[in-house]
Amino acid sequence: MDVIKVSGTSRTSAVAGAIAGVFRENKRAEVQAIGAIAVNQAIKALVLAKGYLKEDGFEIVFSPEFVDVEIDGKTRTAIKFIIEAR
Amino acid sequence: MDVIKVSGTSRTSAVAGAIAGVFRENKRAEVQAIGAIAVNQAIKALVLAKGYLKEDGFEIVFSPEFVDVEIDGKTRTAIKFIIEAR
Repeated sequence: MDVIKVSGTSRTSAVAGAIAGVFRENKRAEVQAIGAIAVNQAIKALVLAKGYLKEDGFEIVFSPEFVDVEIDGKTRTAIKFIIEAR
Repeated sequence: MDVIKVSGTSRTSAVAGAIAGVFRENKRAEVQAIGAIAVNQAIKALVLAKGYLKEDGFEIVFSPEFVDVEIDGKTRTAIKFIIEAR
């Protein structure tokens, strides 16, 4: 299962669709965002995805954690959201 | 139970302590943030609060929703995080 990576320019509806799609297949999804703008986009996508999946009868919750990722040889702290059924 | 309001200048450790305190008392907490910077602060506080409460034997999860709030006579969209035990 691939981690869904969100940037500050990601469209929330596209990210929400990806979250819902991965969740339907795996009953779990992971979303990663770096920086305030990307985190905010990720959260808005989670609200939308929650609505999409509720229509399918799934109630999702998430748990955030810090993860270190390497980008262009530099270590940055990302936030990873684990999405699971309640 | 009061909603914990997070701004862009809120200290994450202070917010995390407030979340953990409210959760210990009510087995539920609500956190509200408006704007990308505040949402990012709220998420970092949620990661910290998750750690604090894990030490107490609680595993918490979050569910985000949009809420309209009125500030200075203008309607703005906030994100509210509901924190509950898994």
